[in-house]
Amino acid sequence: MSLRFVTAGESHGPALTAILEGLPAGLALDVELINRDLARRQQGVGTGPRMKIETDRANIMGGLMDGQTTGGPLSLQVVNADHNKWKGKQVETMTAPRPGHADLTGALKYGYHDLRPSLERASARETTMRVAVGAVCKHFLSQFGIRVGGYVRAIGEITAEFGNLPYEKRFALAEGSDVRCPDENYANQMRARIQEIIQGKDTLGGILEVVAIGVPAGLGSFSQWDRRLESRLAAALMSVQAMKGVEVGPAFENAGMPGTHVQDGISLGSKGSLVRMGNRAGGIEGGISNGEPIVLRVAMKPIATTLTPQKTVDLHTGAGAPTQYERSDFCPVPRAVPILEGMVAFVLADELIAKLGGDSLIEMKPRFDQLRKMRVQDFDLDGKAHLFWP
Amino acid sequence: MSLRFVTAGESHGPALTAILEGLPAGLALDVELINRDLARRQQGVGTGPRMKIETDRANIMGGLMDGQTTGGPLSLQVVNADHNKWKGKQVETMTAPRPGHADLTGALKYGYHDLRPSLERASARETTMRVAVGAVCKHFLSQFGIRVGGYVRAIGEITAEFGNLPYEKRFALAEGSDVRCPDENYANQMRARIQEIIQGKDTLGGILEVVAIGVPAGLGSFSQWDRRLESRLAAALMSVQAMKGVEVGPAFENAGMPGTHVQDGISLGSKGSLVRMGNRAGGIEGGISNGEPIVLRVAMKPIATTLTPQKTVDLHTGAGAPTQYERSDFCPVPRAVPILEGMVAFVLADELIAKLGGDSLIEMKPRFDQLRKMRVQDFDLDGKAHLFWP
Amino acid sequence: MSLRFVTAGESHGPALTAILEGLPAGLALDVELINRDLARRQQGVGTGPRMKIETDRANIMGGLMDGQTTGGPLSLQVVNADHNKWKGKQVETMTAPRPGHADLTGALKYGYHDLRPSLERASARETTMRVAVGAVCKHFLSQFGIRVGGYVRAIGEITAEFGNLPYEKRFALAEGSDVRCPDENYANQMRARIQEIIQGKDTLGGILEVVAIGVPAGLGSFSQWDRRLESRLAAALMSVQAMKGVEVGPAFENAGMPGTHVQDGISLGSKGSLVRMGNRAGGIEGGISNGEPIVLRVAMKPIATTLTPQKTVDLHTGAGAPTQYERSDFCPVPRAVPILEGMVAFVLADELIAKLGGDSLIEMKPRFDQLRKMRVQDFDLDGKAHLFWP
Amino acid sequence: MSLRFVTAGESHGPALTAILEGLPAGLALDVELINRDLARRQQGVGTGPRMKIETDRANIMGGLMDGQTTGGPLSLQVVNADHNKWKGKQVETMTAPRPGHADLTGALKYGYHDLRPSLERASARETTMRVAVGAVCKHFLSQFGIRVGGYVRAIGEITAEFGNLPYEKRFALAEGSDVRCPDENYANQMRARIQEIIQGKDTLGGILEVVAIGVPAGLGSFSQWDRRLESRLAAALMSVQAMKGVEVGPAFENAGMPGTHVQDGISLGSKGSLVRMGNRAGGIEGGISNGEPIVLRVAMKPIATTLTPQKTVDLHTGAGAPTQYERSDFCPVPRAVPILEGMVAFVLADELIAKLGGDSLIEMKPRFDQLRKMRVQDFDLDGKAHLFWP
Repeated sequence: MSLRFVTAGESHGPALTAILEGLPAGLALDVELINRDLARRQQGVGTGPRMKIETDRANIMGGLMDGQTTGGPLSLQVVNADHNKWKGKQVETMTAPRPGHADLTGALKYGYHDLRPSLERASARETTMRVAVGAVCKHFLSQFGIRVGGYVRAIGEITAEFGNLPYEKRFALAEGSDVRCPDENYANQMRARIQEIIQGKDTLGGILEVVAIGVPAGLGSFSQWDRRLESRLAAALMSVQAMKGVEVGPAFENAGMPGTHVQDGISLGSKGSLVRMGNRAGGIEGGISNGEPIVLRVAMKPIATTLTPQKTVDLHTGAGAPTQYERSDFCPVPRAVPILEGMVAFVLADELIAKLGGDSLIEMKPRFDQLRKMRVQDFDLDGKAHLFWP
Repeated sequence: MSLRFVTAGESHGPALTAILEGLPAGLALDVELINRDLARRQQGVGTGPRMKIETDRANIMGGLMDGQTTGGPLSLQVVNADHNKWKGKQVETMTAPRPGHADLTGALKYGYHDLRPSLERASARETTMRVAVGAVCKHFLSQFGIRVGGYVRAIGEITAEFGNLPYEKRFALAEGSDVRCPDENYANQMRARIQEIIQGKDTLGGILEVVAIGVPAGLGSFSQWDRRLESRLAAALMSVQAMKGVEVGPAFENAGMPGTHVQDGISLGSKGSLVRMGNRAGGIEGGISNGEPIVLRVAMKPIATTLTPQKTVDLHTGAGAPTQYERSDFCPVPRAVPILEGMVAFVLADELIAKLGGDSLIEMKPRFDQLRKMRVQDFDLDGKAHLFWP
Repeated sequence: MSLRFVTAGESHGPALTAILEGLPAGLALDVELINRDLARRQQGVGTGPRMKIETDRANIMGGLMDGQTTGGPLSLQVVNADHNKWKGKQVETMTAPRPGHADLTGALKYGYHDLRPSLERASARETTMRVAVGAVCKHFLSQFGIRVGGYVRAIGEITAEFGNLPYEKRFALAEGSDVRCPDENYANQMRARIQEIIQGKDTLGGILEVVAIGVPAGLGSFSQWDRRLESRLAAALMSVQAMKGVEVGPAFENAGMPGTHVQDGISLGSKGSLVRMGNRAGGIEGGISNGEPIVLRVAMKPIATTLTPQKTVDLHTGAGAPTQYERSDFCPVPRAVPILEGMVAFVLADELIAKLGGDSLIEMKPRFDQLRKMRVQDFDLDGKAHLFWP
Repeated sequence: MSLRFVTAGESHGPALTAILEGLPAGLALDVELINRDLARRQQGVGTGPRMKIETDRANIMGGLMDGQTTGGPLSLQVVNADHNKWKGKQVETMTAPRPGHADLTGALKYGYHDLRPSLERASARETTMRVAVGAVCKHFLSQFGIRVGGYVRAIGEITAEFGNLPYEKRFALAEGSDVRCPDENYANQMRARIQEIIQGKDTLGGILEVVAIGVPAGLGSFSQWDRRLESRLAAALMSVQAMKGVEVGPAFENAGMPGTHVQDGISLGSKGSLVRMGNRAGGIEGGISNGEPIVLRVAMKPIATTLTPQKTVDLHTGAGAPTQYERSDFCPVPRAVPILEGMVAFVLADELIAKLGGDSLIEMKPRFDQLRKMRVQDFDLDGKAHLFWP
């Protein structure tokens, strides 16, 4: 049994819900920590009008006593402020599916007579709960010095370069930017491009990077296909609305290079530690974390809803029709950062719980210290050479 | 409960095993069908010497009676011809981890005193069982007119273009090519590049494409994060050794384009069917198959084992050391095609079983016919317009 | 992927939550249907004072649009009326674990400094959500003519006999009885015994029977250990607070009888149908439902909290101490009927979804009709004998 | 991710297979340890003729290097000696389903045209692999001083009483008895009863007890319904062929007693430890192990195959017919002991792995010592009273 979560709720329903199950007891948890990430999800250039309606705040409905997790399931709720406006109101039937959305596939799958149920559940509104769950998981990881952060690498065709800028710095700079890009120069270009696209009644996607720092070696496994860390992370990231591509490190670039240029050589550091000469593997070798930063790159498609109508068919009239506009973002890329961070944090939290075992932080922390110590000690040069075996 | 499989076995152990569980009864299954795919996995330019040692053949140890599946678990075995040579022989301890491999991460995770156990299980030899399991899943899907095929898109920096060449044609041409590239011109360049890299004692990766044709709309779901089809497919593909990037359709390219250029418009076809004006979504919208070909692109890293030694540290002596060469491929990309096909087929088979339900082909086939019929009929223009609701 | 549910919430927290995931679309669902079962859970002789405080009513927070399930996760909430009284109030630390409760084991597991968190989550208050989830599952099953009902067989040492009273009748009579016993004579004895036990400041357990009628043959499987229907039902029933024993049919009695007395002979009925000459197997043979009523018997222990103090140790003072009384039932057996019904219904709903497949009732109903028809037709004597193969 | 296993293979197929996944590395494992339990499964009064044909021996096909587990999946195989006799031979179609078996339900579920496939997979021959998997799990548990043993409590109507005989002693005495009953007097009665039933061409079931000693408090949880230890154990035990009832401790007896007679009082032992005044809870309170022996009682039905024909219908002729005898046991109860031990050990091993975490015994052992120490220390009376909080 491991960490698991499910979410529920529709875009305009009374509330969104998530249950996160399997966290240890004894984690001090302030709801503001969740609210901060919920706010991060609502900010950014290119955000549509709905975000001005909602100011998401979480209610913790279970799993917390005296400000600490109990080991019981955490029940999280975000009320939809927009619900009351919809309640009772006769919402018009939607019959012309928007290409790129779940409108048509949902109706085909579930036999809907109206496309609205597709929109309501498939909507990225659901990512609110991913952020809430993820904020808790990030907080849990932070107890062990593990940090998960993210930033925008590209918006549309504008791709930023950050050189050797350390990850912690990237995270910090991105937070100060309304496009969540660590480099102000690129950020300006991105902002301008977004304004342009809004003028042109179009939308933009982009590329995000999520990085986990301080992850101990040994999470994930090659022992079985579904235990590989890349596999689990890819599943988590690709489960987010609009995410259609994932790579661990610069994988597509690596695929075009000779093997000798791609591997991260191993050398001796001070005090007998092992030092990696690069991180083209993105922190994972053989399906297992190797102690380097885990670097994930995710391709987000441009939002399918555009003010410029697209070609579709009205399923009611059986005739060609333009798509109708539904309130939406123009470029949701900056807002996606906390969502992806959250999903990565969820997977790493699960793996860390499996590695450490136990049911409370009190039980887990000494084990983690031991794990850290073991690694340092193992690689200590003791003159007798047997580096890492006890 | 759904379709599941696990594999077991080491690279030089007595045999590899897989159990595939949840297939319906009544599927006629000839072991030669598995053997054909096992052979496909052993062929291709750039293949190392081991493939001349092994001629993999499957034994079906359970789940089949009178040539038909029973609904019980299918037990598959491939004996390692190489095992006898290793048995009894004193294999030298391996102490210098090769960068890019599981050597070091496995030892750190499992506390090995020798790196060999990492190699033995993490080895791509395990993909033999993915191919075996996948061959069965592809055969199952073929009962419903669903075909999963693949080919090589790029080897190193050589990237082929196929224009509008139909997928079925690509599959056929790729099978005739020792680099599994449908275009002979590009194939020649790839072949030359591989020879060059072998001369240079280096290795190459590349990009593979796997395509599923004939998949009905409605597989996968947006109802929960872990039910999304992209997520499940990404997990399956990224679980394969050396695969580090996945995209659905040209996702990274889409990320750089405006929304209006990326969506696949919907128009009316003959007999009232809906026709998509493109497939940039790669056959999946809202986490659900949309009836178009499902197109997956996978980045495979160059093999980490190179004849040219790489920098590492001997964990026994505690000193820097070059990597020792272990028998390996120079460019395994062509051989990877049936592995990736197999993993895609596994996910789709599971989803199809969930969609159709039932415990035997006799039960499932009429349901599938109904599903197909419903779709055609649903979109029939009957003058009364209500297109797809019953 | 299949039907799943998780619950969250504490006994005196703001609310209880459940998410039920994997239901098909198109199930009309009235919240009163859930409320009726919630009320059933709150009634019965031997009920403690809390039940007069709470009048549980469900809120559906997700998964329902226009009164119909959407195929998305159903989010259910029951607000704890008692919460406001507790909020802010300084609840006294509890330090003397009550034998038979989770007080001590929870504290040992999770490292609690106070026993209250154990009580709060381990409390049978959580069964509220089992009932809510179960009410939905029963309603789903009822669309296919499947009925799950229950009644009390024994309270303390009073064991009722019902002869050949048909199950539907037992259900109806039990609903009219405040001890949920179908036989008025035995009900009187049970009621008297409960009064006596209340006088004696003690508690009583008992034996419940849950029966599922109309279940088609073919649910569950012998193909893998964790697919067996008995196994899944036992897990579901034994997961309910205070349930410590389960048998399918009269299993413990059967264990004492010769084989020839225990099996349910097969004979020919009218129109060529097969008729079973008994149901000592409790409706399951070889891990698969056989079409007969599924009969489950569950042993519920007497509630561990007694007005008569029991021996324990105060963990704070380190000295022997009597248990402190916490508000509780005297005999919760009658109230447990809808809980157990719910758990059985959940398992059967999951199995039925696997058997029928599909994503909406529209898709599933014709398949079920076909399943029923197939069975009748298969066993029709057509003079040509080949009874059940198509 | 946790410990999991699947089995495959038919009664007369070439071999039975199991894959056990999730064991830590570094467990020294001798195949003879498995073979010993396989032999235990083949012995006992009341055993049918097949057991004289097979002398089951396990082959370890994966997961073991240099006699130690690697952390990779363990692949176990038992060849069916009987297979060669069946191979090629034209086995007669079986068309008259035996009541109490999977014959009919399997055919209905999977659409078989012959009843044999039901028999082949549903057969208790599959329990061979449960025993093999279980032997490994017991061996793993033994590294932590946890012992799982079993014995026969009742055969038919003969129910033994053992008074206060310690469990370890019961295990030892049972092993010396061909009916696996610790008391020679009762054993004689059981043996006589079995001979009588063989004469009468009938069969017998019985009641088995499996006990786990040395299990630390804190396994299982009340946090979620499917994490409760009773639930998981019941599922495991009821998944074994012919097992139809399970209770934790004397649950059905407890159900008839007042609450004050049933709970296991807590008192102070020497050195400040807590001592339980009984074990009517069977070692589990609130879904969590409490440190006392876990006592499970299982009802096994008499084997359905009897030399005395039973009433059935030939599905081919459509006429009433007697059952045909298939080679079978007369009383398999003694042989079932190692099967049930194995299933209990599997669940406990999984729970222990979750509690301790880690990937190797080297990592887990100090954590277990800490767990044991923490318990003792926690309950030490230090004059300052705060007993178990750190």
